[in-house]
Amino acid sequence: MAVATQSLEELCINSIRFLAIDAVQKANSGHPGLPMGAAPMAFVLWDRFMRFNPKNPKWFNRDRFVLSAGHGCMLQYALLHLTGYDSVTLDDIKQFRQWGSKTPGHPENFETLGVEVTTGPLGQGIANGVGLAMAEAHLAAKFNKPDAKIVDHYTYVILGDGCNMEGVSGEACSLAGHLGLGKLIALYDDNHISIDGSTDVSFTEDVGKRFEAYGWHVQHVEDGNSDLDAIAKAIEAAKAVTDKPSLIKVTTIIGYGSPNKSNTADVHGAALGKDEVKATRENLGWEYPEFEVPEDALKHFRKAVERGANLETEWDQALADYKAKYPEEAAEFERFASNKLPEGWEKALPTYTPEDKALATRKTSEMTLNALAPVLPELIGGSADLTHSNYTLLKGFGDFQKGQYANRNLRFGVREHGMGSICNGIALHSSGLIPYCATFLVFADYMRAAIRLSALSQAGVIYVMTHDSIALGEDGPTHQPVETIASLRAIPNLLVIRPADGNETSGAYKVAIQAASENRPTLMAFSRQNLPQLAGSGIDHVAKGAYILSDSEGTPDLILIGTGGETYLCVDAAEKLRAEGKNVRVVSMPCWELFDEQDEAYRESVLPKAVTKRLAVEAASSFGWCRYLGNEGAMISIDRFGVSAPGGVALEKFGFTVDNVVAKAKELLG
Amino acid sequence: MAVATQSLEELCINSIRFLAIDAVQKANSGHPGLPMGAAPMAFVLWDRFMRFNPKNPKWFNRDRFVLSAGHGCMLQYALLHLTGYDSVTLDDIKQFRQWGSKTPGHPENFETLGVEVTTGPLGQGIANGVGLAMAEAHLAAKFNKPDAKIVDHYTYVILGDGCNMEGVSGEACSLAGHLGLGKLIALYDDNHISIDGSTDVSFTEDVGKRFEAYGWHVQHVEDGNSDLDAIAKAIEAAKAVTDKPSLIKVTTIIGYGSPNKSNTADVHGAALGKDEVKATRENLGWEYPEFEVPEDALKHFRKAVERGANLETEWDQALADYKAKYPEEAAEFERFASNKLPEGWEKALPTYTPEDKALATRKTSEMTLNALAPVLPELIGGSADLTHSNYTLLKGFGDFQKGQYANRNLRFGVREHGMGSICNGIALHSSGLIPYCATFLVFADYMRAAIRLSALSQAGVIYVMTHDSIALGEDGPTHQPVETIASLRAIPNLLVIRPADGNETSGAYKVAIQAASENRPTLMAFSRQNLPQLAGSGIDHVAKGAYILSDSEGTPDLILIGTGGETYLCVDAAEKLRAEGKNVRVVSMPCWELFDEQDEAYRESVLPKAVTKRLAVEAASSFGWCRYLGNEGAMISIDRFGVSAPGGVALEKFGFTVDNVVAKAKELLG
Repeated sequence: MAVATQSLEELCINSIRFLAIDAVQKANSGHPGLPMGAAPMAFVLWDRFMRFNPKNPKWFNRDRFVLSAGHGCMLQYALLHLTGYDSVTLDDIKQFRQWGSKTPGHPENFETLGVEVTTGPLGQGIANGVGLAMAEAHLAAKFNKPDAKIVDHYTYVILGDGCNMEGVSGEACSLAGHLGLGKLIALYDDNHISIDGSTDVSFTEDVGKRFEAYGWHVQHVEDGNSDLDAIAKAIEAAKAVTDKPSLIKVTTIIGYGSPNKSNTADVHGAALGKDEVKATRENLGWEYPEFEVPEDALKHFRKAVERGANLETEWDQALADYKAKYPEEAAEFERFASNKLPEGWEKALPTYTPEDKALATRKTSEMTLNALAPVLPELIGGSADLTHSNYTLLKGFGDFQKGQYANRNLRFGVREHGMGSICNGIALHSSGLIPYCATFLVFADYMRAAIRLSALSQAGVIYVMTHDSIALGEDGPTHQPVETIASLRAIPNLLVIRPADGNETSGAYKVAIQAASENRPTLMAFSRQNLPQLAGSGIDHVAKGAYILSDSEGTPDLILIGTGGETYLCVDAAEKLRAEGKNVRVVSMPCWELFDEQDEAYRESVLPKAVTKRLAVEAASSFGWCRYLGNEGAMISIDRFGVSAPGGVALEKFGFTVDNVVAKAKELLG
Repeated sequence: MAVATQSLEELCINSIRFLAIDAVQKANSGHPGLPMGAAPMAFVLWDRFMRFNPKNPKWFNRDRFVLSAGHGCMLQYALLHLTGYDSVTLDDIKQFRQWGSKTPGHPENFETLGVEVTTGPLGQGIANGVGLAMAEAHLAAKFNKPDAKIVDHYTYVILGDGCNMEGVSGEACSLAGHLGLGKLIALYDDNHISIDGSTDVSFTEDVGKRFEAYGWHVQHVEDGNSDLDAIAKAIEAAKAVTDKPSLIKVTTIIGYGSPNKSNTADVHGAALGKDEVKATRENLGWEYPEFEVPEDALKHFRKAVERGANLETEWDQALADYKAKYPEEAAEFERFASNKLPEGWEKALPTYTPEDKALATRKTSEMTLNALAPVLPELIGGSADLTHSNYTLLKGFGDFQKGQYANRNLRFGVREHGMGSICNGIALHSSGLIPYCATFLVFADYMRAAIRLSALSQAGVIYVMTHDSIALGEDGPTHQPVETIASLRAIPNLLVIRPADGNETSGAYKVAIQAASENRPTLMAFSRQNLPQLAGSGIDHVAKGAYILSDSEGTPDLILIGTGGETYLCVDAAEKLRAEGKNVRVVSMPCWELFDEQDEAYRESVLPKAVTKRLAVEAASSFGWCRYLGNEGAMISIDRFGVSAPGGVALEKFGFTVDNVVAKAKELLG
């Protein structure tokens, strides 16, 4: 395909292509196919539609762009660079996929300004996009006034076949259709190729029809390689449909321009190779050497700088106007936008004394959520169809539904994975919203990939997980977590808190809210069964991860360590042991990570090295507990799957009784 | 709704309903709504269509039934009891959800004969059903002859709104449509209610249209409460469509018959309560007391016994006929059906010497799979669109596709969770098939719920997970496992093996194949990078979990413990340390679970208690390693997320070098 002179647009599109080709080639690693094939649609989107300020990647009212097909990140890096973001220089592009570079192998929001969310694992980005659109809709409904609008932006996603095969994307898109998220526009790079070859091999569903079934507005651009106007028309039409999210299926050729490798799986995930890079240059008539961008193209791209500055200035004016008319709302808006929690919010946290009645911690969780809801308007969330089991309804705040986006209760349906990914999107909208989501603890397994991404991408999401042990009873082993907590504690940067009573619940939320405002996720595990309010527990103790609940004089003979629903067993057992003259300390350990983050002096004061006789009690797997038990410690744990039986029976049969704690303690004491 | 005299069918249907109502009421726990609403469709299915022998729940050619909406298990228990299965007596029903009963809170195949798979976590059952149907199609294509047919049965699934919201079900159903699984028939209990209330709250997609988009044959029965003939007609029509799976949307009222609670979320997951049980009896004109089944109904149901015996006798005759005509194939069939591995199969496992070249263990995995494929025809599997990265193609055995079901390479597409659940179905078809499935290790997170169910339900699935550490390099932290292995080791009953070289790869497969034939799942982690063949490694060592790779004389000063790709670092470091006069033992520890299952004498011989200076080296999280390291051990690990960079650079920067092992060892030695 010889090209005599390229139009300006072709020049721009090929600039994107060749930055990607050259970067991948230099790294000898990466995915050139998607950038080459999706360059036209991405160019039209960024050039004609997207509103952003390259010099202020955090401008509040920017459109959000997500590359769900994250492996194609050179597409995004090229666009960030070309349009003038300082976060991606030409050198950064040359350092693609190298140690310390700003252009890692998949887009990382915590690494590269201009990247909104971390993608790579397929299906996550589009689900994040649903969350970003939900955030926009909520903030718009909350803040905008008929005569003063400050929240108004679109969420654009580019996704591919892989994302469309993933279940998480179906969950999120079904919910998006139900919610009528009219400002979510997804461009589906329909190139008919995945790693295993033609999609004919395993993926022959009618994607457009499926999205129509979800309630989306669906269009098809037949020639996504050269018909730029058709792409533009489709995006316009998508924007005009305001009560449905839009899918634009854009048929392209993967690796477009490569004479020998285009339209094959080979070009998906490997460098073209020197020869093919050369052949592609010839094929597309690209005379520019490695990494060189034609001046005209760069100039055109860089118009985004001025355009963006103007857009932001306009918006600043709109904000000033809003401030003048609605000073209170404006102050609240600015508080949100700067991630500042309201002064004294923590005073709303409920406190308890041992005289208060026993309550399940899923109940004290509910009480805490509802105490916080009025003082923390940024708190928004819901359950995966277990609202009345997780106890996560914010009473009086209504359901977030189509046309009722100011409401705060999110009804996710039975879609745990989608829920987690959506919440990542809400958090990473970076407008102060603090999303929480809930299900049964054991179903963390369904959403683990999203939880991991919360931790990796520094998304301040709060996971409210109830029914946290065999104590949940009759639902049986498919529902009873055993190894779940251990598996979650293993995730770096995730706080895992298992409160023992009401005060610890409040303390957990205190930590979680603070952490969320600092972009760190927290997962809390709550009981189904009632638990007594413990003497010595306290809100502020939770932040230390573990603390002395009760002590005897002098050096303890033995330390009992409890978490969550088993802590009170330690308390009661200690009483019995002390009555027999044993010197017993009781430690409550709601959070490993926070304890490990304390200084050595504190940790030593709680678990002195010299005291080696330690008995932990947790109705869960012993996996990892040796960390605090050492060679001479012991544990009452459950290291097998549970059994369907009433919760009290299960606890008793598996040894979670005061008598058993006393017995095991005496064994240890020898 | 007074009912004067009930037809025989109404009597039968209400028998189902009231066993469920009474069992749930007695347990004061459980889910009466679905059994009450879905009783008609289940009755029609079991009474007029399903082919099974109550006295032989394991009859090979039985139709498979899966209650994907597993919470409604009293529906299934009632039917098992009424039709004459010995595994569910009336006493068992009275012990619903009690400790030690055969009627646990969700169906468990390992607990109750007649239950094919374990459900409860939504979406799993329908995906298992896809696997069961794939198994039938494969075995039919493999064994049936034009003049002698021995494999011929249907897979029926009842699923609800919850299953339909779950992403895993979408993944599996999309694949089922692609594969044209004509003998899969799903009845969708369309009752418009989920735990959070009306499905209007979050689930308003057009399910029928979505399934049409998947390529399914879709029908709608408008009155699933009383129009039994319409249900029957639909099942007949579904059976007549032989090249597509079928979905029959059956509109029902949840909790049908309960005058005050039907059609509400209340009846979904709680006992009706004494008063409402009474009111329901009145409403439906049911005069029989608790747990009493009218004689006529029982007699009708029990016709299934004779019917089943005849069906099995017919089939025995067909098998005898087949045997006479095709003795070799018959022998193979019987070998499959009895889960017997072929004599001497393990001789095909490749062996290596240290002179053989270095190979990635994903490569030696490929070599092993391909060495085994000819001698283990029961081995069938594939990858979630990473065939040429996971190296899981069985060369020459073709792709399992519509009309080509005898082939053995399964092309799952980018559907990890669906893949795992489907493989559970294939394994639990219990016909000797050994399914394997593959993706990148980090994406075990996407399918963790299915992996857990493999372990819980004793499904002999083999998980082939490659790219198992930061050594995978440039794809970066979203793809680099860190905590994944620890999180999987925590799952009870799952073998997690991380081979160090080619011999250990063969050893891992030896364990995995044997374990699969004994209904235990194995997950193996393989490297992307080349690894040397180690002196001292061996196939049979893997079965011990950990073994001495090399030793010095007398008691070691220090033990180096390596797994997978880091073992050779220990070997090389030991050489250096020994050259300096240190007495160093090198232990390779490919599998924690197997090591823990050895007797104490063996474990002591490998890791003597007295030798407390131990250094483990694994390019993964240290979570849980204290188990083998004790108070005085140390580890070279990575406890944070990785970084996008070439694999060798990443390993080096994070300390996985021989020099660093030597340095840390010396620190330990003091």
